[in-house]
Amino acid sequence: MHYLTPSIRLRKTPFTQRVTETGVQAYTVYNHMLLPSYFRSVEEDYSHLKRAVQIWDVSCERQVEIRGPDAVKLLQLTTPRNLELMQNDQCYYTPIVDEAGCMLNDPVAIKLANDRFWISLADSDMLYYFKGLASGFGLNVSVFEPDVSPLAIQGPLAETLVSNVFGNEIKALKFFKHRLIRFQDQDMVIARSGWSHQGGFEIYVEGSKYGEPLWDYLFEAGQSLDVKAGCPNLIERIEAGLLSYGSDVTMADTPFEAGLSKYCDLETTTTCLATKALLKKQTPSRQIRPIEIEGPPLSPLTTYWPLNDKLGNNVGKISSAAWSPDFMTNIAIGMVDSASWGDGSQLLVESEEGKRTAIVKGKFWI
Amino acid sequence: MHYLTPSIRLRKTPFTQRVTETGVQAYTVYNHMLLPSYFRSVEEDYSHLKRAVQIWDVSCERQVEIRGPDAVKLLQLTTPRNLELMQNDQCYYTPIVDEAGCMLNDPVAIKLANDRFWISLADSDMLYYFKGLASGFGLNVSVFEPDVSPLAIQGPLAETLVSNVFGNEIKALKFFKHRLIRFQDQDMVIARSGWSHQGGFEIYVEGSKYGEPLWDYLFEAGQSLDVKAGCPNLIERIEAGLLSYGSDVTMADTPFEAGLSKYCDLETTTTCLATKALLKKQTPSRQIRPIEIEGPPLSPLTTYWPLNDKLGNNVGKISSAAWSPDFMTNIAIGMVDSASWGDGSQLLVESEEGKRTAIVKGKFWI
Repeated sequence: MHYLTPSIRLRKTPFTQRVTETGVQAYTVYNHMLLPSYFRSVEEDYSHLKRAVQIWDVSCERQVEIRGPDAVKLLQLTTPRNLELMQNDQCYYTPIVDEAGCMLNDPVAIKLANDRFWISLADSDMLYYFKGLASGFGLNVSVFEPDVSPLAIQGPLAETLVSNVFGNEIKALKFFKHRLIRFQDQDMVIARSGWSHQGGFEIYVEGSKYGEPLWDYLFEAGQSLDVKAGCPNLIERIEAGLLSYGSDVTMADTPFEAGLSKYCDLETTTTCLATKALLKKQTPSRQIRPIEIEGPPLSPLTTYWPLNDKLGNNVGKISSAAWSPDFMTNIAIGMVDSASWGDGSQLLVESEEGKRTAIVKGKFWI
Repeated sequence: MHYLTPSIRLRKTPFTQRVTETGVQAYTVYNHMLLPSYFRSVEEDYSHLKRAVQIWDVSCERQVEIRGPDAVKLLQLTTPRNLELMQNDQCYYTPIVDEAGCMLNDPVAIKLANDRFWISLADSDMLYYFKGLASGFGLNVSVFEPDVSPLAIQGPLAETLVSNVFGNEIKALKFFKHRLIRFQDQDMVIARSGWSHQGGFEIYVEGSKYGEPLWDYLFEAGQSLDVKAGCPNLIERIEAGLLSYGSDVTMADTPFEAGLSKYCDLETTTTCLATKALLKKQTPSRQIRPIEIEGPPLSPLTTYWPLNDKLGNNVGKISSAAWSPDFMTNIAIGMVDSASWGDGSQLLVESEEGKRTAIVKGKFWI
């Protein structure tokens, strides 16, 4: 592995000081910002995440605030997901596409009021797309990045920690709903959400100055629960089938290819710019699939691994892979052509450590 | 320094294999892509760059291709620089701004034909802004990322290398002009440009498959010139006053604050969306300045260093700094309030290693 040279351009977060003190070993860069990638090791972080509770600095999920009378109108231009029934306490996972129906991002949209959203981003400058559309369509809306940095609390003991700290009523909060909590003199949005399958919350920390105090407060309160610093975990998120924009899904893919058809309401989203294009692309010729790779643990992938059928024809590629200690196999996410995507389909993957048998699975592991 | 965890999302380039073999030690991430940050050490790379010739993988200067009858119209919406007289063999350094006149990027625009540009990007997803504007204004234009990866040849011996390889007529190419060269069976654009003050060229390598053969060809031909792999050099670019978008200049700044007023033709660029806003911002209250910091070599900065006046009032910040072996002092770039920006103005900088005297300079070092 190579070093990452620090610079202002790779933004620190309100929690970076604490993340460093807690012993982060490696970073990735996400939305021009530092995102920890492991603390002890990916495997140790993984097993701890599955049994206790972790605090994650996911500030890099930068927010675009869309505010004004045309807020819904602007957002609906960009997504085939119907926003009409979305309530002011809801979060929506939202595929965002260009006019051709190609994926630009897959954020979580948080509706704060009828005229106000936060778009919690995957790794691309959606602010620029919203700005361009707002100017071009002359919309009555302002679009900007607020001083809001998500802090995730993830793991089976997350609810215990959060309710100990912010009160038992937090237990009633349903998945992908949000409400307010108070920390010091500040109201903050908390949602039951997060990029793991272990359950948990994301606090949208409004005001950078609250970052370190809140971090310290949660660690203090979580001592008896074996709270540790963590981050989105490669193994766990593959087990859960959580897609990474830029790796598993890119601008080359439609929501249908990304397996997100349940978020596409093409009949009712006539104002989405991509609806016409997507209507023609509803039957994809390739799609995201869980894939098991046989044999001993493989090193992390650094380039796409080609998938071939028995005749040697290329039928897809692997975009994420890791050894799962719990399932005792190499687990992966890949894009597979329709002729080969059936449950149990046997393929050959060209990994950086040679050819291996790969089996397409019917569902993800957890 | 921390490790950078590899992933597909941090894209490799057509040259990454060669860059690795040549001994890159650290990377940064730029436009979702790997950009080498040093090979031997920043200091050794610096002195070699100033005496010989280096090959730089600057693929991360991703291109947005704008093609179609409305290409000029679209680009002019985004920049206060007048494009009317731009010729088909010219490159323009182009501040790009939003409607409020805030900097979104500072790319080099390469005009290939009356209806065709490549926008060679600094670190932000301008593709998204152009896409949004094109949709919103209903422009007759297509906007996409072509398979084009710039390879820079920089240093005092760059012209010798390039003319040895591609013919003596390349010597007639003027600064920020481009022409075609042929490599194998492919025409490629070459410009006299690059992110150093040492002179040189950028080849816009069209087709990833040509990356390694071209790299090998240039290294073979450059052996007698002591050609080495290099990359944009922190020390040299501060000496030359080359700004880094995301560090020295951000969306919080106007072109006037960035010191780019000579690229703002507000009287004649009435179709630029920001002209009205920029007319009110022509007299900035702060501006980019070269700054010398006294005392022994400082460690690289990882956060903005505040600049204070003698009374202890904050009057700006340092965004880039390095020790210059040639000028035997700490050189820096900072944003300074108007009352304190005069040549010779004496300030105090709060570096990560304590307070130091800082002197505002009238011009950059080279």
